[in-house]
Amino acid sequence: MTGTPDTSSPLTTLKRKPERGSHERAVVEAILDEGLVAHVGIVVDGQPFVLPMVYARDGDRLLLHGSVASRLLRTLDAGTPVCVTVTLLDALVLARSQFHHSMNYRSVVVVGVAQRVLDLDACRRAVARIVDHVIPGRAAEARPPTAAELRQTAVLELPIEQASAKRRAGPAVEEPDDLTLDVWGGIVPVSTGFGTPEPDGQGADVPVPRSLSAYGRPGT
Amino acid sequence: MTGTPDTSSPLTTLKRKPERGSHERAVVEAILDEGLVAHVGIVVDGQPFVLPMVYARDGDRLLLHGSVASRLLRTLDAGTPVCVTVTLLDALVLARSQFHHSMNYRSVVVVGVAQRVLDLDACRRAVARIVDHVIPGRAAEARPPTAAELRQTAVLELPIEQASAKRRAGPAVEEPDDLTLDVWGGIVPVSTGFGTPEPDGQGADVPVPRSLSAYGRPGT
Repeated sequence: MTGTPDTSSPLTTLKRKPERGSHERAVVEAILDEGLVAHVGIVVDGQPFVLPMVYARDGDRLLLHGSVASRLLRTLDAGTPVCVTVTLLDALVLARSQFHHSMNYRSVVVVGVAQRVLDLDACRRAVARIVDHVIPGRAAEARPPTAAELRQTAVLELPIEQASAKRRAGPAVEEPDDLTLDVWGGIVPVSTGFGTPEPDGQGADVPVPRSLSAYGRPGT
Repeated sequence: MTGTPDTSSPLTTLKRKPERGSHERAVVEAILDEGLVAHVGIVVDGQPFVLPMVYARDGDRLLLHGSVASRLLRTLDAGTPVCVTVTLLDALVLARSQFHHSMNYRSVVVVGVAQRVLDLDACRRAVARIVDHVIPGRAAEARPPTAAELRQTAVLELPIEQASAKRRAGPAVEEPDDLTLDVWGGIVPVSTGFGTPEPDGQGADVPVPRSLSAYGRPGT
């Protein structure tokens, strides 16, 4: 699209089903903003490891964080190539044939080299941003991190430069002959459900906060 | 646990929060059986790639499949090290401090080398197993794959030998001083919701099948 920054690169060129791919920035950002968990891939001695992590999008970069003692965070710190993937599952797709069963989904893959955020104020803003990614408005309700807490936290940033989005939507592809079969075809919508907030019973009796009063993900 | 096969290995030794880790076979299998999407990590020229894939557990192995033309499947075929991660998100965890915010989750990481399944009958069983992993009983309702369809499908198997499970549950860790703050603490349960099946309107008018009559994931 005209005027839309392009996020394609040789590393994320879409090899298969290019009609499902999109480098459009707004699509990439919407998927990243709706997701809660990223799957982060790193390589250690030739072996890939994929671990679930909380994240946030902050403008044109992804923020990750974790304990300074974690192997994953120490590996990322050393400037290793990384892949961050966020997937939203939208539906189970039932075809009349086993072969054409599928899933509707939206996913984003971001590759690059993550850099450690060292400035203490930048770390403080990043922690607040990650909290607010998961629960908008929550950072202002909760106590900000102390300097000691920030020193235990490794914050990493990954530019959203080499990124691609992929999406499947709609019903199953069907072989014309299969439409005469006595087999049901359609989709089962899949969504992420959020239950009633459960207070932990510790501390003072405090009403459910504003950040949870109408909780939901953007785009849903 | 006595009598439970151990799935630990040097590659999957838990480095951090060992109290959240489990190599108990039953825990690994329950998480794999409940999940719908795996995040599969491979390495291409030193760069990790993490892609969402449908999968199934079949006894003591994981089954993956895709088009024979996909780069991912061709890379796996060559005997490259792989990491398959399945994550179930259970709750958002709100602490009185930003720092102690967390998520409750269960995840399994399986590493190893995937092998191509070449025998046509074994491929046929694998495709049915993957369909039944997503929707138990569905394989018997839908048309089995033709030989031509099977030739377009690459099936890979990965032994569940080097595997570990990780889990976080319960409320936030709190600093004692934070319990006097006027800030709500607790959890928001997260679950995967399945909507009413939507027929695609193609072909004959067929009632919603038995496989969808009480659809849900095992363990929920």
